[in-house]
Amino acid sequence: MLYGVSYYDEYTPVDRIDEDFRLMKKANITVVRIAESTWGTLEPQPGVFDFSHVDRMLSAAQRYDIKVIVGTPTYAIPTWLAREYPDVLVTRPEGQARFGYRQNMDITNPDYRAAAQRVIENLIAHVAEHPAVIGYQVDNETKAYNTAGPNLQAAFVTALRAKWGSLDELNDAWGLDYWSNRVNRWEDFPSTTGTMNASVKNAFAEFQRGLVTEFLAWQTALVRKHARDDQFITQNFDLGWLQTSYGIQPEVNHWLAARPLDVAGIDIYHPSQDGLTGVEIAFGGDLARSLKGGANYYVIETEAQGWLQWTPYPGQLRLQAFSHLASGANMVAYWHWATTSNAVETYWRGLLTQDYQPNEIYQAAAGIGADIRRLGPTLADIEKSNDVAIYVSNRAQSAFDSFKLPGNIEYNQVMRPFYDALYRRNIEADIISPDGNVDLSKYKMIVVPALYAASDEEIARLNAFAEAGGHLVYTFKSGFSDEDTKVRYASQPGAIAQAAGVSYQLFTEPKEVRITPGAYGLAGADLEARWWMEFLTPTTAEVLARFEHHSWPDYAAITRNAHGKGEVTYIGFMPSDAMIEGVLTDTATRAGVVWPETARFPLIVRSGTLTNGDRVRYLLNYSRERQDLPKELADGTDLLTGQTAASTVEPWGVAILESSH
Amino acid sequence: MLYGVSYYDEYTPVDRIDEDFRLMKKANITVVRIAESTWGTLEPQPGVFDFSHVDRMLSAAQRYDIKVIVGTPTYAIPTWLAREYPDVLVTRPEGQARFGYRQNMDITNPDYRAAAQRVIENLIAHVAEHPAVIGYQVDNETKAYNTAGPNLQAAFVTALRAKWGSLDELNDAWGLDYWSNRVNRWEDFPSTTGTMNASVKNAFAEFQRGLVTEFLAWQTALVRKHARDDQFITQNFDLGWLQTSYGIQPEVNHWLAARPLDVAGIDIYHPSQDGLTGVEIAFGGDLARSLKGGANYYVIETEAQGWLQWTPYPGQLRLQAFSHLASGANMVAYWHWATTSNAVETYWRGLLTQDYQPNEIYQAAAGIGADIRRLGPTLADIEKSNDVAIYVSNRAQSAFDSFKLPGNIEYNQVMRPFYDALYRRNIEADIISPDGNVDLSKYKMIVVPALYAASDEEIARLNAFAEAGGHLVYTFKSGFSDEDTKVRYASQPGAIAQAAGVSYQLFTEPKEVRITPGAYGLAGADLEARWWMEFLTPTTAEVLARFEHHSWPDYAAITRNAHGKGEVTYIGFMPSDAMIEGVLTDTATRAGVVWPETARFPLIVRSGTLTNGDRVRYLLNYSRERQDLPKELADGTDLLTGQTAASTVEPWGVAILESSH
Amino acid sequence: MLYGVSYYDEYTPVDRIDEDFRLMKKANITVVRIAESTWGTLEPQPGVFDFSHVDRMLSAAQRYDIKVIVGTPTYAIPTWLAREYPDVLVTRPEGQARFGYRQNMDITNPDYRAAAQRVIENLIAHVAEHPAVIGYQVDNETKAYNTAGPNLQAAFVTALRAKWGSLDELNDAWGLDYWSNRVNRWEDFPSTTGTMNASVKNAFAEFQRGLVTEFLAWQTALVRKHARDDQFITQNFDLGWLQTSYGIQPEVNHWLAARPLDVAGIDIYHPSQDGLTGVEIAFGGDLARSLKGGANYYVIETEAQGWLQWTPYPGQLRLQAFSHLASGANMVAYWHWATTSNAVETYWRGLLTQDYQPNEIYQAAAGIGADIRRLGPTLADIEKSNDVAIYVSNRAQSAFDSFKLPGNIEYNQVMRPFYDALYRRNIEADIISPDGNVDLSKYKMIVVPALYAASDEEIARLNAFAEAGGHLVYTFKSGFSDEDTKVRYASQPGAIAQAAGVSYQLFTEPKEVRITPGAYGLAGADLEARWWMEFLTPTTAEVLARFEHHSWPDYAAITRNAHGKGEVTYIGFMPSDAMIEGVLTDTATRAGVVWPETARFPLIVRSGTLTNGDRVRYLLNYSRERQDLPKELADGTDLLTGQTAASTVEPWGVAILESSH
Repeated sequence: MLYGVSYYDEYTPVDRIDEDFRLMKKANITVVRIAESTWGTLEPQPGVFDFSHVDRMLSAAQRYDIKVIVGTPTYAIPTWLAREYPDVLVTRPEGQARFGYRQNMDITNPDYRAAAQRVIENLIAHVAEHPAVIGYQVDNETKAYNTAGPNLQAAFVTALRAKWGSLDELNDAWGLDYWSNRVNRWEDFPSTTGTMNASVKNAFAEFQRGLVTEFLAWQTALVRKHARDDQFITQNFDLGWLQTSYGIQPEVNHWLAARPLDVAGIDIYHPSQDGLTGVEIAFGGDLARSLKGGANYYVIETEAQGWLQWTPYPGQLRLQAFSHLASGANMVAYWHWATTSNAVETYWRGLLTQDYQPNEIYQAAAGIGADIRRLGPTLADIEKSNDVAIYVSNRAQSAFDSFKLPGNIEYNQVMRPFYDALYRRNIEADIISPDGNVDLSKYKMIVVPALYAASDEEIARLNAFAEAGGHLVYTFKSGFSDEDTKVRYASQPGAIAQAAGVSYQLFTEPKEVRITPGAYGLAGADLEARWWMEFLTPTTAEVLARFEHHSWPDYAAITRNAHGKGEVTYIGFMPSDAMIEGVLTDTATRAGVVWPETARFPLIVRSGTLTNGDRVRYLLNYSRERQDLPKELADGTDLLTGQTAASTVEPWGVAILESSH
Repeated sequence: MLYGVSYYDEYTPVDRIDEDFRLMKKANITVVRIAESTWGTLEPQPGVFDFSHVDRMLSAAQRYDIKVIVGTPTYAIPTWLAREYPDVLVTRPEGQARFGYRQNMDITNPDYRAAAQRVIENLIAHVAEHPAVIGYQVDNETKAYNTAGPNLQAAFVTALRAKWGSLDELNDAWGLDYWSNRVNRWEDFPSTTGTMNASVKNAFAEFQRGLVTEFLAWQTALVRKHARDDQFITQNFDLGWLQTSYGIQPEVNHWLAARPLDVAGIDIYHPSQDGLTGVEIAFGGDLARSLKGGANYYVIETEAQGWLQWTPYPGQLRLQAFSHLASGANMVAYWHWATTSNAVETYWRGLLTQDYQPNEIYQAAAGIGADIRRLGPTLADIEKSNDVAIYVSNRAQSAFDSFKLPGNIEYNQVMRPFYDALYRRNIEADIISPDGNVDLSKYKMIVVPALYAASDEEIARLNAFAEAGGHLVYTFKSGFSDEDTKVRYASQPGAIAQAAGVSYQLFTEPKEVRITPGAYGLAGADLEARWWMEFLTPTTAEVLARFEHHSWPDYAAITRNAHGKGEVTYIGFMPSDAMIEGVLTDTATRAGVVWPETARFPLIVRSGTLTNGDRVRYLLNYSRERQDLPKELADGTDLLTGQTAASTVEPWGVAILESSH
Repeated sequence: MLYGVSYYDEYTPVDRIDEDFRLMKKANITVVRIAESTWGTLEPQPGVFDFSHVDRMLSAAQRYDIKVIVGTPTYAIPTWLAREYPDVLVTRPEGQARFGYRQNMDITNPDYRAAAQRVIENLIAHVAEHPAVIGYQVDNETKAYNTAGPNLQAAFVTALRAKWGSLDELNDAWGLDYWSNRVNRWEDFPSTTGTMNASVKNAFAEFQRGLVTEFLAWQTALVRKHARDDQFITQNFDLGWLQTSYGIQPEVNHWLAARPLDVAGIDIYHPSQDGLTGVEIAFGGDLARSLKGGANYYVIETEAQGWLQWTPYPGQLRLQAFSHLASGANMVAYWHWATTSNAVETYWRGLLTQDYQPNEIYQAAAGIGADIRRLGPTLADIEKSNDVAIYVSNRAQSAFDSFKLPGNIEYNQVMRPFYDALYRRNIEADIISPDGNVDLSKYKMIVVPALYAASDEEIARLNAFAEAGGHLVYTFKSGFSDEDTKVRYASQPGAIAQAAGVSYQLFTEPKEVRITPGAYGLAGADLEARWWMEFLTPTTAEVLARFEHHSWPDYAAITRNAHGKGEVTYIGFMPSDAMIEGVLTDTATRAGVVWPETARFPLIVRSGTLTNGDRVRYLLNYSRERQDLPKELADGTDLLTGQTAASTVEPWGVAILESSH
């Protein structure tokens, strides 16, 4: 179990490396991540390397028995590279990027690639044999940065020719006849940057995600050439962002990109203070765990103090750390040790601020570190096994977000409330994707929010899960379009209609539309329909809830259909959070899912199996008030205290209960 | 009387043309509009034509006895044209347009013109003799798309030299001495794209509107070369947009542009559900009717389902259709038959959605179609004769909108509340423009909102209307500037001051300013002054209402002046909607206008004369509640039921009463 | 004492120069400013001069015994210059400016400079000997207009090489190692336009301010070559803008730029109607007075009618004029005489509107003019002597604004509430700057808001003021960064910590954080902490107020520390306006500052010493209600009435009391 920070000797105001490692050691830090983003220091001029900072850090780490993860520095280019090869700066639809920010390069540019290969190979060859080095991170929070210049347009057309062969088929699949966008010769293919066609836009987005997959595989191979066999390779993936880490990442297909890696890594930044609920930690963890088939993962970055508004309340840092472990993390690391004195992240604070002196946050981390040092061997490599999964899709996301809901509501904002409802009710879930190669049959219940674009095969696979006995929940807008973001020439919800036993032709934005009172025991505002409303008519399905409106007949709102040995629930609108809880717990009960029903948010329960075969149960109090523990949950020994489980959990408190049954 | 849809065999997912025409026929569709925007399909490579889609549609139409309007396809350019001649893409002040969207070309570009001429002439020659073809539409919703590149700047200067001759006069008229903008040699004339001078900006806007006029005349002439004598030529004009069709179009002078056409065509998109009031239908119709001197017009596009939030309530589609007829439309057509499966208008729904199956909306349309089939011969070619007109001006609009009111309130937002007040009170009005060549003497009352820029001659013509006995209502900001957007060197309201018997020097944005209680029987919020306040002092006028304010004396707010045999009312601020009703009904009474005073919105009454000489009265209920019909309006036979007029109109209902007196 | 208007014969619609000067004379106007911004008229073609407008104005002025200030016309370039030398148009980070607006040139461009020199020298040589000319204004509201093209980037690097010599030191000071921004060779120095580093950004901003200083010195030298010895040179500086004149100007270092000038000039535009408080007049005046070491200054522009929403209430124009005099102005001038008939300032109204006829505003001005004519000799050259100063800094401003507070709160919005609190309590203050060469020891109390970036020397100078017995008030975020916007590697508040006897490590955005009830006698919302909160721990300081929060311990919020013979107060958050008043009046009392405590806003008291040695006290009623005058203030003779001071001041009224003690 690793407990770490990112560390940059390069940014440190004075030579205090020994003091810093001493303080880290004292705080039970066991790993530092170094070198990512420091290309300009590593290679001050083309081909001229200066490993002095790296060497200082490795040697200090060795002295203090702290492990090191070395990052390739390629996501922030040096000044000389931008000057010598101006085309390295990415050309986006809105123009070419300027030097200054990170992540401003065209990751396909051959000059960038040549320079990146040189620095990667030199760096890894230089450090690989050092005993402190336990692994590598390739690049950082990689994306294609919306590269869309003429070179990418040409590459896209080449890829299209290879995939489609016939222009007629392509014109048809993408509906290019509309508004004279038809391409009659490959030479006429226009730049995608002006398109108003979601099929074009989303195919290009998928192409861009492919660039990331290819780039990370390329870096991984370069690193592996030099790495020792006992060293791992990871990446620091970041989630889709909505003020904080929020949902799935639209610019990267994490499942495909993670394939060449040994371990999945992720960064998770979440609200704090009264906004701390733990849900982003749980979601990010459940997603990261799914990237390598359920294997444990590394939280490579998370906040210590972070932004101004994130300064944690006493207790919160500790709660956060153990929440990561509760999801299966084998590493928790802060970004970063201290805080930079200049530039844009001056207020993105690490454990220390620019004074480099211990403070309340450091003291809290030291306490966490002591617990992790003590309990790490017990808690590491936890195995999670969930009956429920949330099914997500980058393709559906791109397509959905091409036609956002009123109020600019996007895919993640539909998906997350379904995940969040499960989280609040302590029904643990995996996050699965069509690209994750997961065996659906291991689940009892799968929730499929807004599967807006999907192939017939993909939907058939989901329907087959129900047919075989599973419980499947689809929301509105699922099945609407095929894999090319072409609306199906069929009764809606397309390939889902028959399995769900329901169909609709009309839809609208609901205004003053409510669900029939009493549904799921709800009343008042909990009955309001949000954002979208399909005029559902059951064919074979049972109606679970209806819309009420002064002018329209009482169309069905939620239906359930027996399908094979299982059931398909269809939700034709965006319910209130309370109603989502109602539908999902109802379905989970029918599916035979078992969960700690007596506890609910803010008392969060997360479970797994320890390597010794015992069950472990994390009890996490996400509130300022002490929480009583239901008797049946106060079961086992609290690893933190060594005592039998107490009957309460302190404000922002944690208990870790081990029991053998 | 035509009842139609736009139809695109090009966008249809499978070959179902026969089925589609069968369903249209069943719904009593009598006309389809085709081919507009399909250049990329029609001419897959330069000079290579493929009329197969057109031929299929013409032949199906013929089989089902449905008429066809053929549109020239020129408002969406093909991929090969953009590639071969990149300058075809319009250069706007913010840069050159990209390929993808429609309406992205420079309509003056010679390569575009050459290609457009080729496709127009080939297409029209190909279809002209087909018996199903009854007419043509030239281009679609044409504008100049803010073309402002160097070629246009040069053409503008050429036009200026021809018009002005002397630079001194131009410098003076446009006030170019200010901030060193003076042009001392024609060669120095700077691009208008950086100007901060409204005189320059508006002259360029007028120049751009002239490009549209010329372009449509050019297309019309090309089509006429090939058209049969019994075929008409129209255009699909669109209104100024503010979430829906809203006011006059700032980018086109509809009155000048309509001159070469045989019939005026218009598209009208309006709010729906609880937002449906019918006022956009009435306004658009009254405007379209004025484009060809009061002649009947075609509604070439209107919504069936339209956007998400427009899905109509039961009854609304029917109410809308008859509302169009009530304004003098000889055609109502939906955009479009079905809904495209890809691209930006995926959610701009036609009669059918992407399933191409009959639905509630189709059923409603079929019912409307049956009525139109039955009553069309009676209802077509209705003649409207109104005593009241609203006077609008593109020039005043451009000038006004160069200096928007606080809150970014623009010309149309001042003009429309005056039209709307008449509409709510069932005082029917024509929309007239200085370019419409209309004889003012046929009106009893003319309302002139915000005539911000106008020549002395133009104002004299209006004043003469009052002098001859008419009742003229001017609002604030009228008369302020001359035709060059130069503020008059005169007491305000400039050339109106003497006729209105009022003047002012100061003005401000009113805050906590109210009109003297009791004015027009109003109280409370109805007395509040909005947006603008002129400190009016009557010279010869009678004061109808005064401002109340804690710090300023009680300046006049509304005045009336005897002028010759008539009267001039002046409104020095933006009144509440209720007060606008007060002023206008008061004036109408004095002017001897007669209207159905016992009915008011939501019960709308629209009248005309049938070709048989009988009076027809449309009674339109724009509400969810049944409306009682005042006895004197329940007069005649309801053409829809064949019965004597009932005493109520159903929710969202219609009655069409014919009577011989 | 001058009372004036800007006048533009160039923009006048007809030849009415005689009538205009007659009306001015009648209104007791004694000075006109001419020629600024009229380059296009003065020099219609390169090197061809036409002084006819200037000559007409000088000769009319002479006829009516009105004085003239001649402005160089260089802030609006002529059409021919932009055409002949396109590079004259400034290149900003977002692209090159277009012709049209003023202030769109690169003030360092050699072609611009050559042309500017030619027109300046020809104009000044032409007018210098005219007896009506009393002085000159160089350029107008000059800035660098964010010039940032390649030429400026090169000049910046040259300046950096000269200043820093070593790249290592620069990389270190600016933290360029971060995100690979390190510059290893001067040739690699990237354009600053893409930077994310506040040190780079602020150094470039300081460089740009330097361009303004150099440009004005250059113009001043050119003018002085030709000017008579009895003629003065001034500039029209404008304040930082936030809807109106608001705070210090981020783009100009007024203190450095004013050095070559003879008299400081300023324009002040402020809210009106119910928004008129006089605070912008006071602030602008206090700042202008500080530019030349306390000398009297000119209000070169202020509003007569101004924008739509500024039309003054009766009485306000008069109140405003005397408020300027109360701060030490020796000139009050309106922009402008009349109002332009075209272009962007059509609604920025002068004394007259476009009708050029006397109106209520003109009548008010005439009355003011009569008073000024009568009292000017008495009131001119007032001497102000304040015990209190507000310390401002362009460098701190740039640095602070690189990291704005939540809600985008900027430096001026922190600084002004401190000034405003003093203003409301009638504690008059100077505005001082590190570049003003002021002797701090003349003050009893100095308030230092948000001194975010400052060198050790600068802070030491302030601390020494306290040490020597002064009372110093620092706010939050002071001392945080050094002069390179590098956060100090030290306990915060850095170099202030010891003098203030306080330190902090953590900070956050306060939510539901209140100050302990009772502090400064306040309750309720007045106790709320805004925007920023430092977790203060006193070392040697006394705690004056504490934060209350449910989760954090009661950190100190305001502290006071004995430092040498004086005291240092530190405010670790943004207090409510009421609490700012509390802290500042409390400190002022301890500092022995004496002020008219019985009066507070809206009764404003501003004092000075007349040239005859008498004290003068302006009593200004900034409200719609009559204000009672505390007895001890009703002391002396009211110069306006010639009577003993009355016991009340009229709504929006003024009294000017002279007394010999």
